[in-house]
Amino acid sequence: MVPAPELLARARLLVAPELSAPLVRELERITGRGAEPLGDGEPAAGPLLCVGAALPGGLRTDRLLWFHSVNAGTDPLLAAGPWPAGALLTRTVGRMGERIAQYVLGWVLAECQSVPEFTAQHARAHWERLPTELVAGQTALVYGTGRIGGAVAGLLRGCGVRTVGVARTARTGPPPPGFDRVIGAEEDAGELVGARWVISTLPLTGATEGFFGAGRFAALRRATFVNVGRGATVDLGVLEAALRDGRVRRAVLDVLPTEPAAPGDPVWQMPRTVITSHSSGITADEDVLVDFTACWDAVAAGSRPGLTVDVGRGY
Amino acid sequence: MVPAPELLARARLLVAPELSAPLVRELERITGRGAEPLGDGEPAAGPLLCVGAALPGGLRTDRLLWFHSVNAGTDPLLAAGPWPAGALLTRTVGRMGERIAQYVLGWVLAECQSVPEFTAQHARAHWERLPTELVAGQTALVYGTGRIGGAVAGLLRGCGVRTVGVARTARTGPPPPGFDRVIGAEEDAGELVGARWVISTLPLTGATEGFFGAGRFAALRRATFVNVGRGATVDLGVLEAALRDGRVRRAVLDVLPTEPAAPGDPVWQMPRTVITSHSSGITADEDVLVDFTACWDAVAAGSRPGLTVDVGRGY
Repeated sequence: MVPAPELLARARLLVAPELSAPLVRELERITGRGAEPLGDGEPAAGPLLCVGAALPGGLRTDRLLWFHSVNAGTDPLLAAGPWPAGALLTRTVGRMGERIAQYVLGWVLAECQSVPEFTAQHARAHWERLPTELVAGQTALVYGTGRIGGAVAGLLRGCGVRTVGVARTARTGPPPPGFDRVIGAEEDAGELVGARWVISTLPLTGATEGFFGAGRFAALRRATFVNVGRGATVDLGVLEAALRDGRVRRAVLDVLPTEPAAPGDPVWQMPRTVITSHSSGITADEDVLVDFTACWDAVAAGSRPGLTVDVGRGY
Repeated sequence: MVPAPELLARARLLVAPELSAPLVRELERITGRGAEPLGDGEPAAGPLLCVGAALPGGLRTDRLLWFHSVNAGTDPLLAAGPWPAGALLTRTVGRMGERIAQYVLGWVLAECQSVPEFTAQHARAHWERLPTELVAGQTALVYGTGRIGGAVAGLLRGCGVRTVGVARTARTGPPPPGFDRVIGAEEDAGELVGARWVISTLPLTGATEGFFGAGRFAALRRATFVNVGRGATVDLGVLEAALRDGRVRRAVLDVLPTEPAAPGDPVWQMPRTVITSHSSGITADEDVLVDFTACWDAVAAGSRPGLTVDVGRGY
């Protein structure tokens, strides 16, 4: 629900303590009011406009007018407690699509170009040609056909990769930009067999938990699996078995079901796997600012911001 | 000079011993004659059609009708002795542009995405966000604006990089596909200062030996240098000094003045450098076959093949 102007005008601005000072100053400038810390304490009376990553339970009341997430993924926010009815939830996407697309293409090409192997070989002062692989003509399945999935597919396609998008449900009409084809999640079995790359940008929702399990991994024939979505969409035990029997060639995991992974976590021992510590789509202050401003302008005009999260769907 | 049909019809086919048996069989099929080994021995009388990488001195005579190089770079061929007047020299480019472009983009994105650092960190079972860099908006100078330079620039541009081509001489008219701008080699000083990436695809000719020396490296401000051209175009002593004082951030060298580098070669000790053993543009049998066939068809039609090397220019 779009906050009423008279409520927004007198809302207190609460900002998470981890936000940088320059970012907070900009938020104060845009909203025309001073910022107070977003924490466990009960703020003074009045409606609330919050900017941060997490929402304490004490603020999950009908005083919450609007929460702007500094992250793109809002599943922790929604999982931590019931969302106050009527409160607007918006998120930061920023240049996330572009960032994640460059992450994915970087790791895809690094594998094709044997970047880790050449780096190790150089350290041994050893001259030897290593195989490189032309990615053109290979097939990539990209799960999620939204802004992030589309950006990933677009960059891969620029290198000659055939890109197949997998959407929650089958679509009709021509595929969106970046994709050669879009299919529904129920009809991906045939494409999994021929895929060289399986890339997930899926959010975590009730429908995607454990989405990559025995069924999907069993269909693979030496594909590399890249996860830039959410860790809990993957059954790690099944992934590990698929790595051991070779159906999965390599895994690049930016996200895990439990983050951060402790040094003793067995996830570090999965074969041919690299974990990148949730770094693929870090939002910069500039991203937060640009997206918050767009939401603010929309709300001021009485319209629903394009970055609004559908609390029911979860993204 | 395009060989006369009556001479080509009775030319002996000599093939280098390193060519694979299936490739030789295909060459025999296309030319309609049996192959003999290309070596130091004097072949029986008649004009010669040779396919290989090197030409022994004994065959540098007016009996040589046509030499097809299995490599794109023909500088070793031309440097090893005078080229017989009137002999056609053609070369294999194949999917070289595509291969080298993916090599360059792979190493560029691997640096931006901290691929070697994450790989090392994973081995220590350590979770830590590492900085990643968005390549969009950065400037790449691409030396050489031919097929290979154009392919490199095109892929970089697809990731939002501003691409400046450096040609031997300044050009007028709109830049060729893949480039935002093309300048002449004499006017590159201004662009070197702002470049994040300096990529050389230059062939080795009299004009390019030591091309990347004190003048050019002094102008850099923490640019990464990637060489997929020829090793002798770079003054390695100057490059090493520029790496030590930080004007060059990193170096990725696919080629060296002397290849292969021995284990004791000091080149392995250059800081922040990776040497990739001349692997960026390996030609496959298929590349040789496709390009030789195109040359054969052109010659049969009495026209100059598009893959003819201008022996005077050296490429």
